[in-house]
Amino acid sequence: MKIAIILSGCGNRDGSELQETLSLLLAIDRRNWQYQCFAPKGNLSVVSHVDGKEEGTRDIFAESARIARGNILPIEEYHAADYDALALPGGMGAARNLSTFAFDGANMTVRADVEMTILETFQACKPILAMCIAPMVLAKVLGSKGVLLTLGQPCAASEAAQQLGAKHQCCNPTEVCIDEQHKIYTTPAYMVGTRISEIFAGAENMIAALAERQ
Amino acid sequence: MKIAIILSGCGNRDGSELQETLSLLLAIDRRNWQYQCFAPKGNLSVVSHVDGKEEGTRDIFAESARIARGNILPIEEYHAADYDALALPGGMGAARNLSTFAFDGANMTVRADVEMTILETFQACKPILAMCIAPMVLAKVLGSKGVLLTLGQPCAASEAAQQLGAKHQCCNPTEVCIDEQHKIYTTPAYMVGTRISEIFAGAENMIAALAERQ
Repeated sequence: MKIAIILSGCGNRDGSELQETLSLLLAIDRRNWQYQCFAPKGNLSVVSHVDGKEEGTRDIFAESARIARGNILPIEEYHAADYDALALPGGMGAARNLSTFAFDGANMTVRADVEMTILETFQACKPILAMCIAPMVLAKVLGSKGVLLTLGQPCAASEAAQQLGAKHQCCNPTEVCIDEQHKIYTTPAYMVGTRISEIFAGAENMIAALAERQ
Repeated sequence: MKIAIILSGCGNRDGSELQETLSLLLAIDRRNWQYQCFAPKGNLSVVSHVDGKEEGTRDIFAESARIARGNILPIEEYHAADYDALALPGGMGAARNLSTFAFDGANMTVRADVEMTILETFQACKPILAMCIAPMVLAKVLGSKGVLLTLGQPCAASEAAQQLGAKHQCCNPTEVCIDEQHKIYTTPAYMVGTRISEIFAGAENMIAALAERQ
């Protein structure tokens, strides 16, 4: 199995959440599966992880490369035919850079290249995985199909996901929501989790659920 | 057990290696131990993780905060009495920001605040852990005590460590070098490893070795 991973920067406040992303990579590698990281190009608005202030811009792709030790491809080079599944870790990058959920709520938009990537994978009937707040991106792109997903416990995000047509299932930190029909696997991670061992358990359970169904 | 962790930025080329750092945090948390991240303040020279070019500066502390989800303290607030052990993950930040090994080889210097942190811990007879290239910092500060450590297989770093008075033990990626006398635990991580599951196994083995000796 080879899994494509869409990153959105480096750090939970303005990019991919690091503990979630590394937990996902580790869960994949421990199963002797492979992964390839991708990211879109373009500016992200930097948020300080010390005091929350916004300060300047950085490139989404260059920041995402930090997580991947430089082994990363531009999102436009993704082709569903080359991979067995697509995965989106969480972090506010999913809600600020891949989409506008952080700013627009249920009126959100998704970057065209990210939307194409998700739609191409969905239309190829390949599994799509998402953690934490990233299922909101799936809610926007695939909500009209009535996909089932989790954003943890009832919250503003789960409300918005339902407004977009998605069905919401409550999950505890290490649980996985499985939409068998649409091949969507989601786990709430830091939407409800509080420690890295929970995040890793959720990622491992999500990858195990995928493995059982291949 | 509560372990203090010294970070040096965010990303393997100019800061803390993310896979090593998160593997260390996960190994600690899975044992139901606690951790607290620290970092020094001051500029680091940014290295692109796309093309390796240097481009501007960022603050070591602010970048390190990305790994810790904002839960991080300035290194001067570290007191050995409050912690059971000190740990330094790898990444070029250890060789560029905590010390000058990347530029000066065996003629390296170590930041005064980092040196004080290590010496205070050593003098309190508490364990010190290091991964990847970070044992070079210990070689500089504690080499005169004849500490035993690993930097993987024979290389420029292991040569320099020996010039500084340290003894070098060859290790494979998941192995741990234990200096029982001085309570120094080191694992080579990406000095010789090639995949995240090896890095995590090395971190887990290092924490297990520490647990056995408490």
